[in-house]
Amino acid sequence: MNSPLKKRVALLGSTGSIGRQALDVIAANPDHFEVEVLTAQSNVDLLIEQAKRHKPNVVVIVNEGGYERLKEALAGEPLKIFSGEKALSSVVQMESVDVVLTALVGYAGLQPTIKAIEAGKTIALANKETLVVAGALITQLAREHRVNILPVDSEHSAIFQCLAGELHNPVEKIILTASGGPFRGRKRSDLTTVTKAQALRHPNWSMGAKITIDSATLMNKGLEVIEARWLFGLGASKIEVLVHPQSIIHSMVQFEDGSIKAQLGLPDMRLPIQYALSYPERLKNDFPRFDFAQYPSLTFEKPDTETFRNLALAFDALDRGGNMPCVLNAANEVAVAEFLNDRLSFLGISEVVEQCLAKMDYIREPRLEDYVETDKMTRIRANELIR
Amino acid sequence: MNSPLKKRVALLGSTGSIGRQALDVIAANPDHFEVEVLTAQSNVDLLIEQAKRHKPNVVVIVNEGGYERLKEALAGEPLKIFSGEKALSSVVQMESVDVVLTALVGYAGLQPTIKAIEAGKTIALANKETLVVAGALITQLAREHRVNILPVDSEHSAIFQCLAGELHNPVEKIILTASGGPFRGRKRSDLTTVTKAQALRHPNWSMGAKITIDSATLMNKGLEVIEARWLFGLGASKIEVLVHPQSIIHSMVQFEDGSIKAQLGLPDMRLPIQYALSYPERLKNDFPRFDFAQYPSLTFEKPDTETFRNLALAFDALDRGGNMPCVLNAANEVAVAEFLNDRLSFLGISEVVEQCLAKMDYIREPRLEDYVETDKMTRIRANELIR
Repeated sequence: MNSPLKKRVALLGSTGSIGRQALDVIAANPDHFEVEVLTAQSNVDLLIEQAKRHKPNVVVIVNEGGYERLKEALAGEPLKIFSGEKALSSVVQMESVDVVLTALVGYAGLQPTIKAIEAGKTIALANKETLVVAGALITQLAREHRVNILPVDSEHSAIFQCLAGELHNPVEKIILTASGGPFRGRKRSDLTTVTKAQALRHPNWSMGAKITIDSATLMNKGLEVIEARWLFGLGASKIEVLVHPQSIIHSMVQFEDGSIKAQLGLPDMRLPIQYALSYPERLKNDFPRFDFAQYPSLTFEKPDTETFRNLALAFDALDRGGNMPCVLNAANEVAVAEFLNDRLSFLGISEVVEQCLAKMDYIREPRLEDYVETDKMTRIRANELIR
Repeated sequence: MNSPLKKRVALLGSTGSIGRQALDVIAANPDHFEVEVLTAQSNVDLLIEQAKRHKPNVVVIVNEGGYERLKEALAGEPLKIFSGEKALSSVVQMESVDVVLTALVGYAGLQPTIKAIEAGKTIALANKETLVVAGALITQLAREHRVNILPVDSEHSAIFQCLAGELHNPVEKIILTASGGPFRGRKRSDLTTVTKAQALRHPNWSMGAKITIDSATLMNKGLEVIEARWLFGLGASKIEVLVHPQSIIHSMVQFEDGSIKAQLGLPDMRLPIQYALSYPERLKNDFPRFDFAQYPSLTFEKPDTETFRNLALAFDALDRGGNMPCVLNAANEVAVAEFLNDRLSFLGISEVVEQCLAKMDYIREPRLEDYVETDKMTRIRANELIR
């Protein structure tokens, strides 16, 4: 069954929102894709179910506590089972893997992505934190190993789609659209008592908890700005954020002749996932189509960076460069986790990020060890601030 | 000065709206383009001015009455002067011409376009009537002579831009946007007393009189549907018209994966003119840029084909095929001219077109002579109907 035309996918983070949708896309296109590796952080039950259904050759459970149960449940299946974080870095290098889809959450995506690039695998990148933390290092590695990094984020997929056939034409700017999240239009004083439940209610997209909170604080858009800087090789001055509450135009590119190209569609992550896997081909599917009759008006407004400080902080971190985006990301990961644990207020998230950016040591040209150290020290500092 | 990198342009219809804007584009990019031929129907004064300024090697005045004055005024210039309709067909075949920009009005574009294709010239097509009248014949000829037909109409340029890098991906449908013209939202009963001045007041685009009236009746969009059918090789069922009053999204393409790509910008014909001349490159320019702050809302609605009968008639003519689009065009040219002469009411335009389509003989596979005959006989019939 290992047809050379089929792309063999290692899916890191298969039990999350992107992972589950990626499995739907793969299952719907058995002539084009097959699952080689599935990995999960800790959701053993779903991983067992996925392994039985999608028949990977390898499964990994990162949280070692789940290993025994996984092994027992899959005893009859012809597959290998590993556990632990280091296993991720090995399985992505397997000869039998063509594409690594990195759908794990946060900083954890960094090491396996580096290993996959070093092994020459195509990267379908759903883990934006990898580029946020270490964009210079990752893109340099990708160039050395002649590896394509294909975006899965809907905004970056939109830009990537708009750039098809235009790579010889300089870009004047890109316009990242943002829904504005559940608190669009509110002021800081309206946000002092925001609850977790309110922040988790995204108007358009159904996503994991971390990214949903990041959308409510606009940090998600800030991380995307940094991701775009590295994916498309553009300075911060060429990246604009535009609030578009309907989330239909997923992003845009403006060329040097003033012409703007946009990619549109319903907010449905399966489309950018499929495109990253099938690129440069597009595969016919039966996803619901966008209908203008349902959206007689598409609206646009400037982002309010006074209320949503995180977006301004992300631009600052990008401007300063070095390890500052790594600080931004680590501080945000801790702050969001603590908000979800009811130990930090909504407005406290950007306060923690801002203080970490002000206090952590600046490293102009970090090596991998520096990123690891910056991440660790920032997390300690952020936790201290919250306590 | 005949650098092989410069495209040498024969500009047919240089004194019209598209022609004048094309000369601005050419003059702004002297390293990329030069004017080889200028032709005008009857505006001798402007043609003289243009010839002195843009230094073509050949000028043509179609209306022979202007020849003597033109010759006298340009006596000191190192250029050749011709007159008469047949001269158009000769000059487009000159060795020294690379690109023929067909910016003349109506059926008159057909013969010179055929001659230019036969001589292997790239066509920048601003004369949509050529494809409306004889799309099958023109596209067949272009294939035989391996000639590119590059659209200048903003809608078709938008689609062409969206197709860059996607030619291997099947199109599910194209969505032609329409401003809706000055009478959008009106019903037939509101349009019985429309004056020429009202119909000539287009909300977004500044264009010639004929196309402005066609925009008010929606015939322009009908002609564009037929033009798109031939330019992009799509059946009528894959072409949709969407009213978008702000004229910012110039048109869209939906691919088989459901992804939609759109091209946006201010309504400024210089951009599609420049793109047709510079393709596949884009040239930096200082045209005003689109700013979402000025357009916080883009709106969309279905076209009202009961009020604007011409759009439905164009789809009918395309469905019937053969010489019917030629009938549609000839009847419309006569009707619009008579409306501009105050000899026909606004609603009378579509009545004339509808009656001609009902009465003229159907020819399934017309040859060039059949188109010529159909055009002639339809004009006679339309004039009779109006009298």
